[in-house]
Amino acid sequence: MLIHPDRLFSAEPEARAIARCLYASVRDLPIISPHGHTDPRWYADDEAFPDPATLFVVPDHYIFRMLYSQGVRLEDLGIPERGNSQPERNARAIWRRFAEHYHLFRGTPTRLWLDHTFATLFGFTERLSARTADDYFDRISAALKTPEFRPRALFDRFRIEAIATTESPLDPLRHHETLRQSGWHGRVVTAYRPDPVVDPDFEGFRDNLARFGEITGCDTTTWSGYLEAHRRRRAFFRDYGATSTDHGHPTARTADLPRDDAEALFRKVSTRQVAPEEAELFRAQMLTEMAAMSIEDGMVMQIHPGSSRNHNLAIFSKFGRDMGADIPSRTDYVRALKPLLDRFGNERNLTIILFTLDETSYSRELAPLAGHYPALKLGPAWWFFDSPEGMRRFRELTTETAGFYNTVGFNDDTRAYLSIPARHDMARRVDCTYLANLVTTHRLDEDEAHEVAHDLAYRLAKEAYKL
Amino acid sequence: MLIHPDRLFSAEPEARAIARCLYASVRDLPIISPHGHTDPRWYADDEAFPDPATLFVVPDHYIFRMLYSQGVRLEDLGIPERGNSQPERNARAIWRRFAEHYHLFRGTPTRLWLDHTFATLFGFTERLSARTADDYFDRISAALKTPEFRPRALFDRFRIEAIATTESPLDPLRHHETLRQSGWHGRVVTAYRPDPVVDPDFEGFRDNLARFGEITGCDTTTWSGYLEAHRRRRAFFRDYGATSTDHGHPTARTADLPRDDAEALFRKVSTRQVAPEEAELFRAQMLTEMAAMSIEDGMVMQIHPGSSRNHNLAIFSKFGRDMGADIPSRTDYVRALKPLLDRFGNERNLTIILFTLDETSYSRELAPLAGHYPALKLGPAWWFFDSPEGMRRFRELTTETAGFYNTVGFNDDTRAYLSIPARHDMARRVDCTYLANLVTTHRLDEDEAHEVAHDLAYRLAKEAYKL
Amino acid sequence: MLIHPDRLFSAEPEARAIARCLYASVRDLPIISPHGHTDPRWYADDEAFPDPATLFVVPDHYIFRMLYSQGVRLEDLGIPERGNSQPERNARAIWRRFAEHYHLFRGTPTRLWLDHTFATLFGFTERLSARTADDYFDRISAALKTPEFRPRALFDRFRIEAIATTESPLDPLRHHETLRQSGWHGRVVTAYRPDPVVDPDFEGFRDNLARFGEITGCDTTTWSGYLEAHRRRRAFFRDYGATSTDHGHPTARTADLPRDDAEALFRKVSTRQVAPEEAELFRAQMLTEMAAMSIEDGMVMQIHPGSSRNHNLAIFSKFGRDMGADIPSRTDYVRALKPLLDRFGNERNLTIILFTLDETSYSRELAPLAGHYPALKLGPAWWFFDSPEGMRRFRELTTETAGFYNTVGFNDDTRAYLSIPARHDMARRVDCTYLANLVTTHRLDEDEAHEVAHDLAYRLAKEAYKL
Repeated sequence: MLIHPDRLFSAEPEARAIARCLYASVRDLPIISPHGHTDPRWYADDEAFPDPATLFVVPDHYIFRMLYSQGVRLEDLGIPERGNSQPERNARAIWRRFAEHYHLFRGTPTRLWLDHTFATLFGFTERLSARTADDYFDRISAALKTPEFRPRALFDRFRIEAIATTESPLDPLRHHETLRQSGWHGRVVTAYRPDPVVDPDFEGFRDNLARFGEITGCDTTTWSGYLEAHRRRRAFFRDYGATSTDHGHPTARTADLPRDDAEALFRKVSTRQVAPEEAELFRAQMLTEMAAMSIEDGMVMQIHPGSSRNHNLAIFSKFGRDMGADIPSRTDYVRALKPLLDRFGNERNLTIILFTLDETSYSRELAPLAGHYPALKLGPAWWFFDSPEGMRRFRELTTETAGFYNTVGFNDDTRAYLSIPARHDMARRVDCTYLANLVTTHRLDEDEAHEVAHDLAYRLAKEAYKL
Repeated sequence: MLIHPDRLFSAEPEARAIARCLYASVRDLPIISPHGHTDPRWYADDEAFPDPATLFVVPDHYIFRMLYSQGVRLEDLGIPERGNSQPERNARAIWRRFAEHYHLFRGTPTRLWLDHTFATLFGFTERLSARTADDYFDRISAALKTPEFRPRALFDRFRIEAIATTESPLDPLRHHETLRQSGWHGRVVTAYRPDPVVDPDFEGFRDNLARFGEITGCDTTTWSGYLEAHRRRRAFFRDYGATSTDHGHPTARTADLPRDDAEALFRKVSTRQVAPEEAELFRAQMLTEMAAMSIEDGMVMQIHPGSSRNHNLAIFSKFGRDMGADIPSRTDYVRALKPLLDRFGNERNLTIILFTLDETSYSRELAPLAGHYPALKLGPAWWFFDSPEGMRRFRELTTETAGFYNTVGFNDDTRAYLSIPARHDMARRVDCTYLANLVTTHRLDEDEAHEVAHDLAYRLAKEAYKL
Repeated sequence: MLIHPDRLFSAEPEARAIARCLYASVRDLPIISPHGHTDPRWYADDEAFPDPATLFVVPDHYIFRMLYSQGVRLEDLGIPERGNSQPERNARAIWRRFAEHYHLFRGTPTRLWLDHTFATLFGFTERLSARTADDYFDRISAALKTPEFRPRALFDRFRIEAIATTESPLDPLRHHETLRQSGWHGRVVTAYRPDPVVDPDFEGFRDNLARFGEITGCDTTTWSGYLEAHRRRRAFFRDYGATSTDHGHPTARTADLPRDDAEALFRKVSTRQVAPEEAELFRAQMLTEMAAMSIEDGMVMQIHPGSSRNHNLAIFSKFGRDMGADIPSRTDYVRALKPLLDRFGNERNLTIILFTLDETSYSRELAPLAGHYPALKLGPAWWFFDSPEGMRRFRELTTETAGFYNTVGFNDDTRAYLSIPARHDMARRVDCTYLANLVTTHRLDEDEAHEVAHDLAYRLAKEAYKL
């Protein structure tokens, strides 16, 4: 048996019994996936996924970073080099390589997600290994050819009530348009991720600004035109269901410059390469501008700071972005957010959802901030911490100060479509285990735990993201 | 039943049995409350508390910050605006508002303290909620009118052996004087908290210095006169039982300047607005000066650093200090304390008790420092971390390096008088649970655990604070 | 009974049963001790240890720092003052003093190591205390006089397969030479710790450089001669079995300067006192140079950063280095290691083992780095964190991101020879407890847990260190 019905619950019988009971009441709730990176083309075109390697290994940085750390070359996993969007791939060879190294994932969430997927979607009962690699490959390949494994069929099978993809302002939202016209019932919305036109260090930033002007019909060579372009493009995104924006800055720094200074800074960053400090200040200012627009248009704002992107120079040069070489770094929130909070922190009709890759900030900064400011909420444990221990620490370190109701439930943040049920299942189990622990230590009554379990699994995400 | 006899103990039967046994032996020990913020007027005048809202909600920043974070306005909770010390209050309306939002406190220590208080003092058996709000209000109101609920009666009922309040050097200690003359048996001592005359950034600092001179008869326009004023005022406080000083600086920075430099710095800060770095340096120097005086007069020194006070600009402008908007920030101890430790760290007749709001310093800095320097001890988990998980982390992160005997037991640090028994009870339960875990994993013998439980609940605080 | 067969296992029966079973399969595996500070003279001369105080108390900074923190003077523990290498010692008086304070070690790993040693080597069944002090002293003294307690006999009894000592490049490796010529079967290898000739802040650095030149026959007044001296000396160390180098820098900073800049910097640091920033830069550059040599000669590189050495000025002045006054401080890895990683991070034939005294870096920096870069591995929980809770945190905070196979098993890092079995036993028990928890929560299959337990106890250290 690949997955056990009691997985992730405490082994202590009393706590396990309560966790089982809590989990039973939330297991089958619909999935709200308010933040993620699945490809809207999947839902629009509803084509079959090509093969197990291309589906599971090639796009999953959790998988290939681990294999790479142990000496497997990215080329041998089918990762395309820059400029080669359709590399030759021997899917079976890649799959075997992955299967031979499956022991590397012992103790990791990736292992749990994969086993859950292999068991529940494909019916496997034996572990993936060098010995079972071909059987896995053949059976998954066969399944992927059937209508039941098309994206829309899976969407229903996964019981997804709403899912958000993430697009740049420069994206024409073509797939979302296809989707809309298709009349399909599934709710797939976009989200506004303006980093390419907000971050002066983004590749091609100044070209992006020009393109941004063309798309929106605004004069993005001026500060007011540039802001207007954002306003229009946010409205365009809202037409395609967007209820949120997302900001992936290196730090959480915000600024609230006088208008003239902001304008002068924009002139600089929009016309030439600037010093790191100026790029940082511009990003900082833009978080405050985005918050101002959110108050106008009601879009929820997500801040995902603290990743040192593309840390590995050689890998970045050869393979480009998102190659498993993004490394967290220390992130300050207390000073960084102050300019934004001084201006908008007390707004009750603004929701800013904070994420972190620096777990030290949970109890020291994030819970105290979210436990005070009406505008702030805490996003779930993110990325490397989207894991059983990571989620447990998140609850243990935030609940006592911020409670449950300044958090927003779970989001899967994934591009690995087939892992979505596994990820939500993990979050529901870990939260139920946490709640069961509160109940067995008499810190929470069981009827309350049931209510909270439901809130964490479903209601809070739906409400916070207005879905 | 609002509170369970086994609350906070591990659910594992063996560990629970040992925790019960340890707890039984310390449950009824007298309370030593060596550091807190109750109002000495209560003990001096022994008047009835006015009503449930004014007693529980209005003064408790743990409560109103949580309500505020979820959109309740401070005005609607009876929080007085600046300059309005006696606002109109509809106590019942405030109480109902609080009761309606009681679910926000699920999983927080506030909930546990309140339930403990409601159950043990007022006999409630059903949870506070919108439905039970009026019943709570009426029964508490009635009780508060009885002699059993006067401050002195509660003092005895709480089995308080000694409690310290905290006063500024500018405080005339009038209530303490009243108390002394009353002949009442309760031991209520003051503590010397000189921030208003030590921190150049404190509101009215230079006026405070002048007042400090008047009160002490010293020339506080000179460095030597200023230091002499501290010496005299510390002696005055000792007359009212003070055994400790307390220092609430933004950082733990210390300095040991040559006398001339210190004198010049004092001249600056005492005569004009100075740069942040100079204010910081003056506070730093004063910690070392206070340590020097502690060696002379035997007063125990507490350092409570690391809070970014009044983070919310709008709230501070409208309502003033201590409005639930103090946010912790990263705090360094290793470099910060070095000047003070170079001078006095090896003194065996000096006790400096260190606190932190940055839990990362427990294992990395504080335990290694306290496990080496004779002058240093660790205060208990503080403020946001005065909680079951916070206390557990404190023990898990400090004991292996500093042991139990470089810590000083528990202090409640509260202005919420009625919560004092609940807070000490929580600390005793969490410590017993921690000890029981050491016993069941055979890291400590049961006879030793009993001795340590007693030390943590009673003896260490009494000895460290010389009470 | 001093030690319980189930010590450190979870009290929950199911988890305990699995932990017992896992532990039973690794308990008797040979000890690989790839990094430590035992004295090679012991193995070379095989003389009896003098007395219990000199063996257990005087050299163990874990012990005397705790006693010192509680007011015991170092002089009264037989710690020699600077320049007095053979102080008068009343061994029995020191032992009694230690025994009287044995309760200070409650809850610390030192207590567990000592009890394990007392029980398994000397047969004690009653706790050390003032009452049993003399009995302990007499029985240990008697045992130390027997052949069974000579270093080589203990080596066999401890089932040590290989142990590394640590020497400076200036060390003539005389004891290692004696050992080689003795024909004794025990595998004792050296390790190359070049801090005295790499760190410009090291006492006598410039004299050390001159001596380094004499020993190696290289012109260490030039950059190329200096590098060549390292190459030769590393080869010399490899002749005595060395497979690793070790670097104890204040930070993890690395640099990759152009050759001319490096040369100019060397000229500075080798001829005069330099500014702290220049000393730091030179150490940073040398880490990269050492990595380059490791690629040439195959030596594994260990980086042990982040200790503020000799924090206590008075103690350092009177007693010198390593007096229990080294305090960890915050350590950054992400930026610090980038220059080195940009150059060598993708090398699959290089192994850099990272350690930390800043546990916040486990999940935020170290696990993400080691889970990506082929050249990086994580060393075990170090120093203050070589403890049950420290090891548990290490696994909980690194496994989900880096897995088990980017870690390198356990090393004892000790100069306390008799504690080596206790330390490895503790690591094996804690790892088995961690694995048992994964099994009972159905995150790992039991057959896999057995394989991992064996890897962590034996195979990974042997392979990572090439022993």
